[in-house]
Amino acid sequence: MEESTNKFKFSLLHVDPTGARSGEIQTPHGKIETPIFMPVGTAGAMKAMTTRQLLECSAQILLSNAYHLHLQPGTAIIKKLGGLHSFMDWHKPILTDSGGFQVFSLPKKEITQEGVKFKNQKTGDEFFLSPENSISSQNDLGADIIMAFDECVPGDADKSAAKKAAHRTLLWANRCLKAHKNKNQALFGISQGSIYKDLRIENITELKKLDFPGYALGGLSVGEGIETMSRVLNWSVPLLPENKPRYVMGIGLPEDILCAVESGIDMFDCIIPTRYARSGVLFTYGGKIRIRSGRYKHDKYPVDTRAYSYTSQNFTRAYLNHLYKSNEILAATLGSIHNIHFFMDFVKQIRNAIFENRFAEYKIEFLKLYTQRNKHG
Amino acid sequence: MEESTNKFKFSLLHVDPTGARSGEIQTPHGKIETPIFMPVGTAGAMKAMTTRQLLECSAQILLSNAYHLHLQPGTAIIKKLGGLHSFMDWHKPILTDSGGFQVFSLPKKEITQEGVKFKNQKTGDEFFLSPENSISSQNDLGADIIMAFDECVPGDADKSAAKKAAHRTLLWANRCLKAHKNKNQALFGISQGSIYKDLRIENITELKKLDFPGYALGGLSVGEGIETMSRVLNWSVPLLPENKPRYVMGIGLPEDILCAVESGIDMFDCIIPTRYARSGVLFTYGGKIRIRSGRYKHDKYPVDTRAYSYTSQNFTRAYLNHLYKSNEILAATLGSIHNIHFFMDFVKQIRNAIFENRFAEYKIEFLKLYTQRNKHG
Repeated sequence: MEESTNKFKFSLLHVDPTGARSGEIQTPHGKIETPIFMPVGTAGAMKAMTTRQLLECSAQILLSNAYHLHLQPGTAIIKKLGGLHSFMDWHKPILTDSGGFQVFSLPKKEITQEGVKFKNQKTGDEFFLSPENSISSQNDLGADIIMAFDECVPGDADKSAAKKAAHRTLLWANRCLKAHKNKNQALFGISQGSIYKDLRIENITELKKLDFPGYALGGLSVGEGIETMSRVLNWSVPLLPENKPRYVMGIGLPEDILCAVESGIDMFDCIIPTRYARSGVLFTYGGKIRIRSGRYKHDKYPVDTRAYSYTSQNFTRAYLNHLYKSNEILAATLGSIHNIHFFMDFVKQIRNAIFENRFAEYKIEFLKLYTQRNKHG
Repeated sequence: MEESTNKFKFSLLHVDPTGARSGEIQTPHGKIETPIFMPVGTAGAMKAMTTRQLLECSAQILLSNAYHLHLQPGTAIIKKLGGLHSFMDWHKPILTDSGGFQVFSLPKKEITQEGVKFKNQKTGDEFFLSPENSISSQNDLGADIIMAFDECVPGDADKSAAKKAAHRTLLWANRCLKAHKNKNQALFGISQGSIYKDLRIENITELKKLDFPGYALGGLSVGEGIETMSRVLNWSVPLLPENKPRYVMGIGLPEDILCAVESGIDMFDCIIPTRYARSGVLFTYGGKIRIRSGRYKHDKYPVDTRAYSYTSQNFTRAYLNHLYKSNEILAATLGSIHNIHFFMDFVKQIRNAIFENRFAEYKIEFLKLYTQRNKHG
């Protein structure tokens, strides 16, 4: 089962009894094994990590945001300098998000059928983002996968607001397709419809007619909780084409990722590993640890011997505790390297489990160990 | 000409017609080529850089501070975890400063012949630092080179204050020698005496009788200006033993380093490369550049093609400008890597020039190019 857009091709390799799937995406900058976690380097930079360090964590694709790069430094500059891969020295696949999520999160904006007018919160400059100029910005950046410009409503939006946004997203999806000029980039469609079953069904049914090379579910992980998210995934994912990559945006914690994979999702992204790292929360197979805690002051062991990151290989928990206590920038760097390594190792284990038809067992085993520490403090 | 303390040995290899010297220091963690610039990782961590990145910049020795490590996490913890080299994963030579400079910079402290009583400015806890416990802390840390506990007066101190401090420093030097228990560590003496010729002469003459394996000049680069510093160096350095390493503490800018080398100094340390990097000032052979400036927004060239750091090899000035404008932590990392690389490359050029008896020409050529940009903005 294959679907290609020039250099873009998705191959579904195996489906586990639970419905969890593993596959491979080929892009102009190399292949991606799915299910895949995509680390986020919002403004064309991983926070507190070099791209070389990201590569050493076995990252396969990085996510960046056209919205932020549109405001600073401007996507035309990046195009002139040879595109985003070269600009940030990352020569593996990149996915850019359209900025829909960010623009609709702004406190003040003016939404019309044309697009969204808003002010740069730092400079006060007025900007306008539309399906056409979001795609044009993403064409400038040259990511391997780009995203349609969608309207995302908050998790607590009522049904009429969710319906309006889903309709607009569909209309804009058409305009994004027409605006898309660089056929080396795969443009993914985004489904909206919040937590409402009929809206999701209608939205996905219509989006499918547009024949995008991949589909994302937007408007999840926006405060609805894992049970609701799981329910929405269970309705929505079976409607998506089997032979195309399926991406759920903005997740998440390891438990969210397991839930998404089980429902048949192939791709996910989140700022959690790097943001948590900066606040001193490190992921281990034994659960999350708060490394600033006094219990680690004398701890001579690595953060996690199973997620054997550069950080775990070379430093003790006591050293990390010291760095966080001293507010050293290096704390953020070593913490981020560890957490990204953990997430990449985790999805590798998931892929292996799927290939061996034991995803259900893997999920139970993982959660048993992982939730132990969090339960007992 | 050689001087050894167990595994510590200094070999003077060449003296250029100007008096600039090149040599080699052997330590338990390997050799150091002199003249050498020592990057500063105050609290047992380079700011915004991993030790692996520091190694890639060709750093040969790192300076850390016993004062900071005494307060946080406590040097006994580091000893228990195997010493500072292992704690911070730096397996080349380390020099620890005693904390004299830091303690005497505190606004409130109580100085007696015994030592200095002060409060931890963060926690309010009371601490006491003396020659004995500074050396004991440094014995715990296990650096290859450790420093005597001295009293450093401000640059504008009057002569009577400078005299008192120089005398106390001498008294304390004796006590440091007696307290020093780990003969794998070379304990250097520190001369004080501010900018007063007779005080310096007296102080160095007395210190020499104690036969330290190396000598430092303290109390310089504390606001006296390069001309005054140069004058003090010209009186002081000829008094120091020829066959022992000579270290001037806390310098500095490239022009200060050239001045110190010309006077016959072998070692220097400063926070300038990393601190300047964090504020967006990058060193190049064409002068310092303020990378946040709008003039670099579209600049497709590396920071410096001659100081060909990881940063220069992989990123444009436009990318760095973007990182600084976006307040990305990565800006501090890439800036620090570049600046440290520049300083290490600079002292390598100095060593080569000395070996080829052309230090005087090198200095002129360097300053001509380096001051061009700074003159013309």
